[in-house]
Amino acid sequence: MEKLKVKTVDGGVCSAKGFRAAAAAAAIKYSGRDDVALVVADAPCAAAAMFTTNKVAAAPVVYDRRVVKSGRIQAILANSGCANACTGEAGLKDAEFSALVTAGELGIDPSLVLVASTGVIGRRLPVDRLAAGAKAAAKALGRSREKSLAVAKAVMTTDTRPKEAAATVAIGGKRITVGGCVKGSGMIEPNMATMLGFITTDAAITPAMLRRALKLAVAKSFNSLVVDGDESTNDSVFLLASGAAGNDEIAMAGEGFNAFLAALEAVCVSLARQMAKDGEGATKFVTVTVRGAKTRRDADRAARAVARSPLAKTSWFGRDPNWGRVLAAVGYSGAEVADMKAEVLYGGEWAFRRGEVADAEQLKKLEKVLAGDELEIVVDLHLGQFESTIYTCDLSLDYVHINADYTT
Amino acid sequence: MEKLKVKTVDGGVCSAKGFRAAAAAAAIKYSGRDDVALVVADAPCAAAAMFTTNKVAAAPVVYDRRVVKSGRIQAILANSGCANACTGEAGLKDAEFSALVTAGELGIDPSLVLVASTGVIGRRLPVDRLAAGAKAAAKALGRSREKSLAVAKAVMTTDTRPKEAAATVAIGGKRITVGGCVKGSGMIEPNMATMLGFITTDAAITPAMLRRALKLAVAKSFNSLVVDGDESTNDSVFLLASGAAGNDEIAMAGEGFNAFLAALEAVCVSLARQMAKDGEGATKFVTVTVRGAKTRRDADRAARAVARSPLAKTSWFGRDPNWGRVLAAVGYSGAEVADMKAEVLYGGEWAFRRGEVADAEQLKKLEKVLAGDELEIVVDLHLGQFESTIYTCDLSLDYVHINADYTT
Repeated sequence: MEKLKVKTVDGGVCSAKGFRAAAAAAAIKYSGRDDVALVVADAPCAAAAMFTTNKVAAAPVVYDRRVVKSGRIQAILANSGCANACTGEAGLKDAEFSALVTAGELGIDPSLVLVASTGVIGRRLPVDRLAAGAKAAAKALGRSREKSLAVAKAVMTTDTRPKEAAATVAIGGKRITVGGCVKGSGMIEPNMATMLGFITTDAAITPAMLRRALKLAVAKSFNSLVVDGDESTNDSVFLLASGAAGNDEIAMAGEGFNAFLAALEAVCVSLARQMAKDGEGATKFVTVTVRGAKTRRDADRAARAVARSPLAKTSWFGRDPNWGRVLAAVGYSGAEVADMKAEVLYGGEWAFRRGEVADAEQLKKLEKVLAGDELEIVVDLHLGQFESTIYTCDLSLDYVHINADYTT
Repeated sequence: MEKLKVKTVDGGVCSAKGFRAAAAAAAIKYSGRDDVALVVADAPCAAAAMFTTNKVAAAPVVYDRRVVKSGRIQAILANSGCANACTGEAGLKDAEFSALVTAGELGIDPSLVLVASTGVIGRRLPVDRLAAGAKAAAKALGRSREKSLAVAKAVMTTDTRPKEAAATVAIGGKRITVGGCVKGSGMIEPNMATMLGFITTDAAITPAMLRRALKLAVAKSFNSLVVDGDESTNDSVFLLASGAAGNDEIAMAGEGFNAFLAALEAVCVSLARQMAKDGEGATKFVTVTVRGAKTRRDADRAARAVARSPLAKTSWFGRDPNWGRVLAAVGYSGAEVADMKAEVLYGGEWAFRRGEVADAEQLKKLEKVLAGDELEIVVDLHLGQFESTIYTCDLSLDYVHINADYTT
């Protein structure tokens, strides 16, 4: 198994060889902190990206979709103050201008630059301040643990902590590294809502295989994440491959591709779990697994319905083993379910088992499980072979505080 | 227009001639209050009912679906302490036994009795206490404003106030009355989640036309209601027609049917609006209208996505004219949308207009609108002719309090 070779390591967006990074304070929205980040490869890279499926897509998303088609990118400029969404043609020009300015600072072709934005919707990008930020970041570029962390911090909005991950794996005797960071703590469900992800690798791999790997890894990680069911206009995840590790270029399916994919998945799943843990106001990281489903689709929609249910989420916050709400969510998900065959377990302890309800003794065990800050919920439908896991969190008073007080 | 003849009046479940009702305290779950309700017609009635589409359906729902097929019903027994859901064959027997006991008390055939339950899932119905409640209620039956109100109160769970409505209309020179009550304040979305509705009329109408009228009225009222997107195992709405008004029996489409439908719709829409206003923890009653959609389906799913979005709902609670979250929800709903053509209005005041964003002066107007306890949001997509309206409420701190503290 290729997976066994993957080693998770401490690191971030410049752990892979061939990348430098920096952050800068540009007062886009925040003051007294970095809010611009720049990731730059030593040379043009193989590149892949995935974006929001929201039909109201922000200007940088529209711009990047066009640019990344070439499969070759050298730099990404990000800001965390202004989403540059719902800004029309003017916003698109602002995105283009940001890329142009960044290319100028780096002395590279503008077609090699991607841009990413997150923040308030409907405001024009303050391009002068952003350009100043790009200039400052370009001057500060470097490759170190600190630079990686600076980028992870600069892209945060309502996040309470930076989120980084890295992993290494051997491919044909060469050790390759994948590393990166994400921002995102709310609106995360499916298709990466309001997340920005920046991942780099020194593996040599073609743009086509890079795209394929990213799609597979995202399905198992960012797209298996539910915070509140909202999906943003700006979600993007970027993956650049420098080739500096010196492995034979991965150009088709096979052992090399599998090893690379395993490392990429390890990084993406770690980042996704960190996002769920940092869900807005979350007090609990929750894994919802539906197994024994009749079809793969049933398993997936049942798990998502539970992860999305405000009633189930508030019961986790209230430390209440309310399996009725969990089973009711499965019931309206559209999945096949026979309630007298089903089991609901919290942290391995059953709360409902084919019609039997937890007694006082069992409830004591459940109380203990629910007091923790991690919760694993399993619904076994006993109807088939299929299984799906979704990462999520509870719905707390602070979620409402955070989102009621966030200023337009 | 038939609608113009409809007069809304003060009243409830025994406003229509031919019905008596009563409530009783049976300590099913609550103490010190009525938690059993009984509605009885003087003779077997034409009857129609609609139930949850949740695949985990409670025992009373399974039982009633079978019984109501006859189209003739004389009594409904309800309790608000125990849902009798996820209780398997035993629960089904308990439901049957409750109907049997009620029929015995009333001296009627058990096949004329429906049962309704709401409350905690997974607990067996305390049939002895319920039987005692049914007996007490049967002895207290009467037809008065107070008896109607007593039923509306007895079926409440997390509701903060009883919800009743009544309307009258003339059909062929005879004045007919429709009246009823509902319980429900959370999990209300689509298909009447965790609501119980009891509606009576003295119109003479065939069971087939009664079913048709109920289906049409529910689509415009209870199924256009979103509180939190959850859907329960117990939702039911019952409609009994005594024929005591003496009109020519409505047996086909036409003027008489239209008049009846208009009165029924008036009652159902009023009850639905009352439920949204009483949404768990709600501080605002919100109407979301999406117009100018390309298709009816687009209008409907866009309006539902906005009404369901936790981010949009918390922004209303925070009195924030965050049109970006509203438009983002439309964007991920699947509906066609071109953000530069769209408008978002709060209480008739625009916040976003084809790319233009509210300035300071406009924001002042929006602030005033958002301070009220009723909010009308319109998204005009300017892409077509279709329109849809959904009733909902905001997502407040109290929603989380109520649902985190509710005991399993």
